Amino acid sequence: MSTTVKLASGREMPLVGFGLWKVPAETAAETVYNAIKAGYRLFDGAYDYQNEKEAGEGIKRAIAEGLVKREDIFVTTKLWNNYHRREHALEMAKLQNEAWGLGYIDLYLIHFPVSLEYVEPSKRRFPAWWMDDNREVVSWDKVPIRETWEALETVVDQGIARSIGVSNFQAQSLYDIQTYARHPISALQIEHHPYLVQPDLVALAAELNITVTAYSSFGPQSFIELAGIFSARAKDTPLLLESAAIKAIADKHGKTPAQVLLRWATQRGVAVIPKSNNPGRLAQNLDVTGFDLAKEEIEQISGLDRGLRFNDPGFYLPNHPLRIFA
Amino acid sequence: MSTTVKLASGREMPLVGFGLWKVPAETAAETVYNAIKAGYRLFDGAYDYQNEKEAGEGIKRAIAEGLVKREDIFVTTKLWNNYHRREHALEMAKLQNEAWGLGYIDLYLIHFPVSLEYVEPSKRRFPAWWMDDNREVVSWDKVPIRETWEALETVVDQGIARSIGVSNFQAQSLYDIQTYARHPISALQIEHHPYLVQPDLVALAAELNITVTAYSSFGPQSFIELAGIFSARAKDTPLLLESAAIKAIADKHGKTPAQVLLRWATQRGVAVIPKSNNPGRLAQNLDVTGFDLAKEEIEQISGLDRGLRFNDPGFYLPNHPLRIFA
Repeated sequence: MSTTVKLASGREMPLVGFGLWKVPAETAAETVYNAIKAGYRLFDGAYDYQNEKEAGEGIKRAIAEGLVKREDIFVTTKLWNNYHRREHALEMAKLQNEAWGLGYIDLYLIHFPVSLEYVEPSKRRFPAWWMDDNREVVSWDKVPIRETWEALETVVDQGIARSIGVSNFQAQSLYDIQTYARHPISALQIEHHPYLVQPDLVALAAELNITVTAYSSFGPQSFIELAGIFSARAKDTPLLLESAAIKAIADKHGKTPAQVLLRWATQRGVAVIPKSNNPGRLAQNLDVTGFDLAKEEIEQISGLDRGLRFNDPGFYLPNHPLRIFA
Repeated sequence: MSTTVKLASGREMPLVGFGLWKVPAETAAETVYNAIKAGYRLFDGAYDYQNEKEAGEGIKRAIAEGLVKREDIFVTTKLWNNYHRREHALEMAKLQNEAWGLGYIDLYLIHFPVSLEYVEPSKRRFPAWWMDDNREVVSWDKVPIRETWEALETVVDQGIARSIGVSNFQAQSLYDIQTYARHPISALQIEHHPYLVQPDLVALAAELNITVTAYSSFGPQSFIELAGIFSARAKDTPLLLESAAIKAIADKHGKTPAQVLLRWATQRGVAVIPKSNNPGRLAQNLDVTGFDLAKEEIEQISGLDRGLRFNDPGFYLPNHPLRIFA
């Protein structure tokens, strides 16, 4: 149904999917079920999004009703920072796979290249970056990326996940994993929009046969709905969806600005995972491989680059910034 | 004589030193000898600079003449990309230490977080990034950073070097080394000037107790004397030494623009390693801890930041770019 890309693992992945970040657990099953009816086949989740079980229920309902088969669906999910140790990573992969309840995970990613102290799920089920209410205490753990990567390889060996990859990793981290990887880095998920184009990182991934998935394709839009410091930088930035340049290109093609932003990514081989609670936009966001932007239009959009990152722990942990992109 | 900083290893390092990049081997001994007479105590070399033996001769002459003692001198040098494997790194540390001829190396750095295929010194003594004349063939090797770092730790254990560190590494690489380091990362050497301030990386290094040394403190100046593509980007960029803002601050303090650029770094705890073949400037460059810029002046200079990198392999390897800073 949707256009796919072939991952380094040999598996096919849809180029357009549905992002589950900020989808409330209470409505996630219904949202996912409706997204499948609208044509979505890829769902991008994470332990940190706190809605894996519910998203899985939505998929299982669609399968039970005969709308899709398991093999039509592609589930991505991510290992959170507090579970980087080998035994915790393996345990979490199993628990997350059980939560989805679909037999296997299609793509399992290391969420961030940062290892935080283990917190027992019985004590705190969903640990955040910080340990305290003032966001002043961030407790590192000393777990090499290699230990976590090799745990993910075991997750593949055990049939829990079919492909593995990373999120929020930069070039030097990718180079290092490549020196010891037994299973390929199939995917790299990064913040990617016209304000943060990262052309060198995207080109590097292409060279290394790593498929890039963009998150926050609409730039500030994904962050203004968040509270406090998470949204501050976004509120100070002109919305891409209201950019005159984007609007003009959208009008020319008879598409929406959102569709143009998504097509700008997919036409360059970058997968996208937009989210919407609006049924009309849900369908529009999926329809972003059926028209082509001109080379000049793509370059014009890329020209909006400001190197501006919104999902930056160094920004939303002001009392103890984690400068993971420095 | 000169201001020093205490490294994580416990050793003292001068905050101002003499950089040996681009110093011809033929004149290196004389240049280094004169630099010691001018008051320099730190010399920043590298295997790749092809002048270690000669620089060591200049130091030995000064010691023989009673100008300085070995312990007054601080020698930094670096392991080149083709020798990242454990056995090659150990062998190179020994060979480089013998070339300097001073008994030990004060600080030994991994030059780049990139491992290239081993080339026997008898076949090519100083391999470049590329294997061919067209700069089209770059041959990676799969050596994890950890293997190279642990080799450097052995170099310390064997008394060949007293402190170890890295150069051209980004945050994610530093985090990963911290998870397994047995000896601390004492130093991080990076391109650092008002066009490439990297405030988050400098702050991160401070948090991790890693001393930052700036190379190319004058920005484009260091690159315009190079040929072809190495200098192209620098030639298109206004010189910092001729910047009206820098000149105005220099005039106010009765200093040169070069001294202001170096003081902008040292006042923020960043060590510098300028180079000059001019005796007058040699002395001026050393005199950059004896005056203070105002907070507003430091901020004004930092405000020139363009995120502009000149020593970027992705730029000077156009046929096979290594995007190590992506």
